[in-house]
Amino acid sequence: MSIEPEMKSWERLLELAEASDSGDLESYLSSLDPNEAVRAILRLDPEHQEKVLTRLTPANAADLIEDIPDEQAADIMEYLKPKDAAEIVTEMQSDEQADLIADLDDEDAEAILEKMAPDEADEARQLASYADDVAGGLMVTEYFRFEESVTVGDAVDEIQSLADNIDEYVSRYAYVVSNWGRLVGVIEVSELVNFSRDIPLANVMVPSLFAQAKAPLDDLKNFFENRSFSAVPVVDRHGRLLGIVRRSAVQNALAKRAEQEMLRMHGIVGGDEIRTLPMFTRSRRRLSWLSVNIVLNIAAASVIALHIETLGAVIALAVFLPIISDMSGCSGNQAVAVSMRELSLGIVKPSEIFRVWLKEISVGAVNGVVLGILLGVVAWAWKGNPYLGLVVGSALALNTLIAVSIGGVVPLMLKRFGVDPAVASGPILTTVTDICGFFLVLTFAATLLTKLVP
Amino acid sequence: MSIEPEMKSWERLLELAEASDSGDLESYLSSLDPNEAVRAILRLDPEHQEKVLTRLTPANAADLIEDIPDEQAADIMEYLKPKDAAEIVTEMQSDEQADLIADLDDEDAEAILEKMAPDEADEARQLASYADDVAGGLMVTEYFRFEESVTVGDAVDEIQSLADNIDEYVSRYAYVVSNWGRLVGVIEVSELVNFSRDIPLANVMVPSLFAQAKAPLDDLKNFFENRSFSAVPVVDRHGRLLGIVRRSAVQNALAKRAEQEMLRMHGIVGGDEIRTLPMFTRSRRRLSWLSVNIVLNIAAASVIALHIETLGAVIALAVFLPIISDMSGCSGNQAVAVSMRELSLGIVKPSEIFRVWLKEISVGAVNGVVLGILLGVVAWAWKGNPYLGLVVGSALALNTLIAVSIGGVVPLMLKRFGVDPAVASGPILTTVTDICGFFLVLTFAATLLTKLVP
Repeated sequence: MSIEPEMKSWERLLELAEASDSGDLESYLSSLDPNEAVRAILRLDPEHQEKVLTRLTPANAADLIEDIPDEQAADIMEYLKPKDAAEIVTEMQSDEQADLIADLDDEDAEAILEKMAPDEADEARQLASYADDVAGGLMVTEYFRFEESVTVGDAVDEIQSLADNIDEYVSRYAYVVSNWGRLVGVIEVSELVNFSRDIPLANVMVPSLFAQAKAPLDDLKNFFENRSFSAVPVVDRHGRLLGIVRRSAVQNALAKRAEQEMLRMHGIVGGDEIRTLPMFTRSRRRLSWLSVNIVLNIAAASVIALHIETLGAVIALAVFLPIISDMSGCSGNQAVAVSMRELSLGIVKPSEIFRVWLKEISVGAVNGVVLGILLGVVAWAWKGNPYLGLVVGSALALNTLIAVSIGGVVPLMLKRFGVDPAVASGPILTTVTDICGFFLVLTFAATLLTKLVP
Repeated sequence: MSIEPEMKSWERLLELAEASDSGDLESYLSSLDPNEAVRAILRLDPEHQEKVLTRLTPANAADLIEDIPDEQAADIMEYLKPKDAAEIVTEMQSDEQADLIADLDDEDAEAILEKMAPDEADEARQLASYADDVAGGLMVTEYFRFEESVTVGDAVDEIQSLADNIDEYVSRYAYVVSNWGRLVGVIEVSELVNFSRDIPLANVMVPSLFAQAKAPLDDLKNFFENRSFSAVPVVDRHGRLLGIVRRSAVQNALAKRAEQEMLRMHGIVGGDEIRTLPMFTRSRRRLSWLSVNIVLNIAAASVIALHIETLGAVIALAVFLPIISDMSGCSGNQAVAVSMRELSLGIVKPSEIFRVWLKEISVGAVNGVVLGILLGVVAWAWKGNPYLGLVVGSALALNTLIAVSIGGVVPLMLKRFGVDPAVASGPILTTVTDICGFFLVLTFAATLLTKLVP
């Protein structure tokens, strides 16, 4: 099989999807860097995506689907026949399975689940019912689990019989449950060889730490930061063992959260966009945010409209209004970013509003004075009127103080009231600072009007 | 020991730092949630931070220091006597040690390293010489390493003798090296029990995958995404084994990178700020970014100054200039965020500028028309002049198209030229869109001037 150097991966993939030998397709995909494979499959149209996936073995198709961003993976699976999709879903790791099913439309999800083995489907339904940032949503159900009466020998034999599937059994630990399914203990698999084969696990296990199914991501983060375990068992409120959360699942979830926060802070809300999504979906999602913003912008600009006579008398001010608006936004956004980071590091509590405000106004005062003098001198030099410099400089200085106060404090307040600070902080900040900035410039100018008009 | 309910953690810590019994201090700190402990220690002045750290055992002090954000940890260590600091540094895990030493001033780092055991110091120096986002900077040197001639029995005995320090020996694998230190193979520690004790490791090991010391974070990310290993060995260019990179180190580094990207995108550059830093440091760092931004803002606003007569004739336009500036920034920032995410997911390559641009202009055209009509209608309704609506609406529509083009494409271009897109994309975007936006409104208005002036 020779690959022309000029041919792009997705073009080659398209060609192989049409060709007769599915072995070539398998070997071509496995030869690609995984990112390249994802890029290539996302470039295909739905019919060819279907062709590729159904011609791979279900296990290989499952690996590919696991590499694709969640929402796009859901779109692709919805396009497949439920039976084909079910075969692939069955091969996925349980946490990825649950994420995918949660992202599918309810109807499509049910159609796929119906084609799966009933016990697998029930398990997937249950896992998909948890939010994806709590222990229940992050857990996998591939782990070693034994009743306490099982002997060391039987446990070792069973573990060895599963050796072929060892990478599904991701944990180094064997968890021990009562005959009611309650978690009663744990033992490292590698330690089992130290005991004689006929002792029951109940006699060799040690008590286990655990997490509740509803434990939030931050609790899990703290748990793993302070311990060297590679996984933690998850129990329901009756103490029954449901699954395990691996350290890597928690770290992946944290990385994903940081990335989504970045997207939301930049107005990508209502679903993570990637550019292979249909144009109108992308447009609609972006507009949902922009349309709120334009209303807020018009509201802020109406402050200018209310002072239009002052502006008419000193038209030079119009040059400085966008500068004050933008610079206040910049200063405030720095404070927002620091607050968001301190919140996510856990080094500030949402209740420490007053302390954060004190820390911000000192920086805001210094930076406001520096920026105000800079802009004031520019204004003075441009029109040769020191009063123009005084008006715009002092308005910027004061508004910088307002901007860092709002930027620092608003994320904490939003968090306290359970609103997502990544989404709401920016619009609140820019709207309030625009209103204040325009108001300050134009009322200062009105006060000094006789000095400003030649 | 009773804790008054009203007393804050840091106040209690201050009290215990002064008290005579360091056992109370140890047990109080271990009773705190780790985030709370970090918050408390960061609230103390340097003298009391020193008191707390020197009264803890070096191992406990090392645990605490490892939990504190890098740069603040470095500040605290610089304040300690080099001998005290050296004792704590010695107890830190090798990768954390290297990060800390890299963050210290050169002079302080040398003073601390001189007080450490010479071999430990050499190792720390070497690790600190790697960038913190390549394999060399992420590796630890606590792992099981044997020459190929060592027998299974001797290896098992040595591993068992290290059992007390088992959480330092973070890997499940024993790595096998030639007598020149070259990596020749690997074996899972738990498998060693399956072989008779007198076989040399050379006969039971399997060949090992490895990473070069300079392998970038993204390569390691791909490596672990596609394999179930918990660690990968790192070799120099001669194939000599230097250390291992754990899966968790890669995931932590990815989470940290996402967070720093968020900070840089919001103008927190030149060091990650937290609010316990001195006020002038914070102010200076923020100003370094703001002062660039204000110059760019003044440059953009000079476009308005050049068209001041048009503005004087149609003063109502001044109300719409900040709206067009802000909305174009919003639209462009959405495109920046999507590009940044696609770059970090690896689903777009920096060379795919044309494809990204095509994807952006379609969305930009739709959203530009929607937003333009909205703003145009508001302008028309306000002044009763349809031409005013036409001028501001079409300027916004066209500028939205420009904004998404720049926002989508600039991060890819910057990445291609090796410039950090998180820092530079925003200012380039807002400056260019401001200039274009102001220019479009004011030239459209100049063209239709007779229709706009009553």
